[in-house]
Amino acid sequence: MTAAAESRSTGDFPLDREHAVTLDSTDPLAPLRARFLTHRAEDDRPRPIYLDGNSLGRPTAGTVSRLAHVAEQEWGQGLVRSWSHWIDLGARVGDLIGEHLLGAAAGQVVISDSTTVNLYKLAAAAIDARPGRRVIVTDDDNFPTDRYVLEGLAARHDLELRLLPTDIDAGLGLDALRAAVGPDTALVCLSHVAYRSGALLDMGAVNRIVHDAGALVLWDLCHAAGAVPVELDATAADLAVGCSYKYLNGGPGAPAFLYVRHDLQESLRQPIWGWFGRRDQFAMGQGYDPAPGLGSFLSGTPPILPIAATEEGVRVLAEAGIDRLRAKGALLTSYLIVLADAWLPELRLATPREPARRGSHVTLAHPDAWRITQALIERANVIPDYRTPDRLRLGPAPICTSFVDVWDAMDRLRGILRTRAYEDFPATPTRVT
Amino acid sequence: MTAAAESRSTGDFPLDREHAVTLDSTDPLAPLRARFLTHRAEDDRPRPIYLDGNSLGRPTAGTVSRLAHVAEQEWGQGLVRSWSHWIDLGARVGDLIGEHLLGAAAGQVVISDSTTVNLYKLAAAAIDARPGRRVIVTDDDNFPTDRYVLEGLAARHDLELRLLPTDIDAGLGLDALRAAVGPDTALVCLSHVAYRSGALLDMGAVNRIVHDAGALVLWDLCHAAGAVPVELDATAADLAVGCSYKYLNGGPGAPAFLYVRHDLQESLRQPIWGWFGRRDQFAMGQGYDPAPGLGSFLSGTPPILPIAATEEGVRVLAEAGIDRLRAKGALLTSYLIVLADAWLPELRLATPREPARRGSHVTLAHPDAWRITQALIERANVIPDYRTPDRLRLGPAPICTSFVDVWDAMDRLRGILRTRAYEDFPATPTRVT
Repeated sequence: MTAAAESRSTGDFPLDREHAVTLDSTDPLAPLRARFLTHRAEDDRPRPIYLDGNSLGRPTAGTVSRLAHVAEQEWGQGLVRSWSHWIDLGARVGDLIGEHLLGAAAGQVVISDSTTVNLYKLAAAAIDARPGRRVIVTDDDNFPTDRYVLEGLAARHDLELRLLPTDIDAGLGLDALRAAVGPDTALVCLSHVAYRSGALLDMGAVNRIVHDAGALVLWDLCHAAGAVPVELDATAADLAVGCSYKYLNGGPGAPAFLYVRHDLQESLRQPIWGWFGRRDQFAMGQGYDPAPGLGSFLSGTPPILPIAATEEGVRVLAEAGIDRLRAKGALLTSYLIVLADAWLPELRLATPREPARRGSHVTLAHPDAWRITQALIERANVIPDYRTPDRLRLGPAPICTSFVDVWDAMDRLRGILRTRAYEDFPATPTRVT
Repeated sequence: MTAAAESRSTGDFPLDREHAVTLDSTDPLAPLRARFLTHRAEDDRPRPIYLDGNSLGRPTAGTVSRLAHVAEQEWGQGLVRSWSHWIDLGARVGDLIGEHLLGAAAGQVVISDSTTVNLYKLAAAAIDARPGRRVIVTDDDNFPTDRYVLEGLAARHDLELRLLPTDIDAGLGLDALRAAVGPDTALVCLSHVAYRSGALLDMGAVNRIVHDAGALVLWDLCHAAGAVPVELDATAADLAVGCSYKYLNGGPGAPAFLYVRHDLQESLRQPIWGWFGRRDQFAMGQGYDPAPGLGSFLSGTPPILPIAATEEGVRVLAEAGIDRLRAKGALLTSYLIVLADAWLPELRLATPREPARRGSHVTLAHPDAWRITQALIERANVIPDYRTPDRLRLGPAPICTSFVDVWDAMDRLRGILRTRAYEDFPATPTRVT
């Protein structure tokens, strides 16, 4: 099909591909796309389009060079001496993330373990800090690892895990939260941006509700960091964790960051006592004596290669600026929704329509979402994500997705739907672990 | 000084440099040294010699290529699709380590989190599996992170942590262990090779003592894996963790492996419940349902880059074979001790003299060990390690250290001692975290 022939218009948005080209030409972040590793084109396939930056971000050329430098020079030549530089790399990258993406002053963010382990450490510390309070609150659509970590802690500490029923399209309502939180609540753990719908919670409002009840709040920022401005300090958040391998482009399984507000650092104690969390680590003395400040939230030796990659990814985001990233993310997703409205009536929008109420990904529901996802990947060279039960998740990363990417991807998607090209694919997910 | 002029002989070992050359010429592992990244020589400095492979191992050229491949191709081009390959990378590398280095049949070893976090998970699981038993046993010279992790768990579970007094030169005695372990013991956690002295514990004998008391044993293999043959299955060990960045050459902070014996996998439950440990992970369902087998011991998303690097490092060790690595390690350390005996009477051997009772590193005591370490690095371009309180630790890695490396290093060390070149350096460690 040709673009012009297929275009219609809806509201203020012209739907032809030329308009996408125009949007790209006025995009102040467009020059930064060239930093990223080029997608290699294949002769017999359409240009590859990546719409899963919210699951695994992309490397820049600088990331690849940095990794080579760390491996060949710092590790290969510097050897163990390089620990003088590496020892606080996680803190330096944490501060970079805090300053540019999380609204957190220095000394409150550090790269530590996986998101899961970081969640465990901070949730356990929070529970201990609220003795006698028997309830942990989260929502039943929170990311699975959050729910499982909290379930494990609740079981061990004989607490109740209160899973708030959540509209999986619209996200958790504040009234439901307000009703669920009270004097028995030790901890509330929520995602700032919902992993499936992209629904954005009002951090300030949630913090007030939780603090009014005397509880602590732990934010999962995995789908928020690098996509929307986060104001941890200004909203008086207590604790947070977040992923380095999504919008931060730190690479597969890069370890996660954690945030502990300054005035909580001395009173909270996380349960995994290790040598990286001990005062005067290399004295190797008897007895655990927690390091001052954020140091006590570390445990073991951190993996340097992915932390270095994360630093490269974050530097490009810092250059872009979170406000411009947010503005572009809102535009990209709005554009995607306009095209979906116009072209894909058989797909239902399962993400808040109002830009201020969502992050930077859009989810569309269709009974054949799994097959459509496979067809997009195999037939159209567009990489989205499937999410249970019937969701096609499209994550345009503001830093490296163009408006033409969105237009082309949606154009190919309508082609797949029109020709029912997805019907050749198995009806149910085959990926199991 | 010239080698010939300075040489003396002691017992069966000629002490001239030519003999080191001869030893290298008959070393069956010598060809594998060429796999490692070349140390770049500097015009004005002696040839660099690395004797800290027991702290941070070295990269092979294949490791550097592999990292570039993972970054550019698997991550940069394959993007999120590469998870189909990455998802069980930690299990594949775990099996490789288990088969070639740990005497562990497949399905019992997996790369997971840091050594510290793995220790925490397995120790917590073991404590839960022995309800009513109130004592955890370790030795007071165990690696700091082991002691701290156990101290934290003991505090949380209101248990006693029994720290056995240990001779920091000779290691823990079995009689002391036998006397300390009884019907109140839940868990014994010991290092197979002591981090400071290199003393090697008899794994079979320890396992029998612990099992006779009905307790579980958790081995720290950080300084053993890749240096000495470990027979986890044959000695009926219960649990183990170990480092990927020392003899396994996985790179700075590469995540650690853990071992859980087959018949314990279903009954033991680790406390950090995460999505990588759940049955049918991508169903993302409600409620934690542990994956079968070793899977339930995973928690969060593992960092792929350092696991891939570890695979490259382990492949070279597998090619060498653990028996040849052990034989060469015993020879290298014996040779080092002979030279120390002959040349360095002012340094006291702080490692068991009998090769069968030590791993692959040798520790020498001297009141000025810190200054001597600095002088070796700065003046002689030899990289050893300092350990409290007064120890110079020399770790020739069997896979990539030559006999000439040992001879030259010891020759430079005697030069530093003779000229008292270390007296210019600060008397106490300045490295603090």
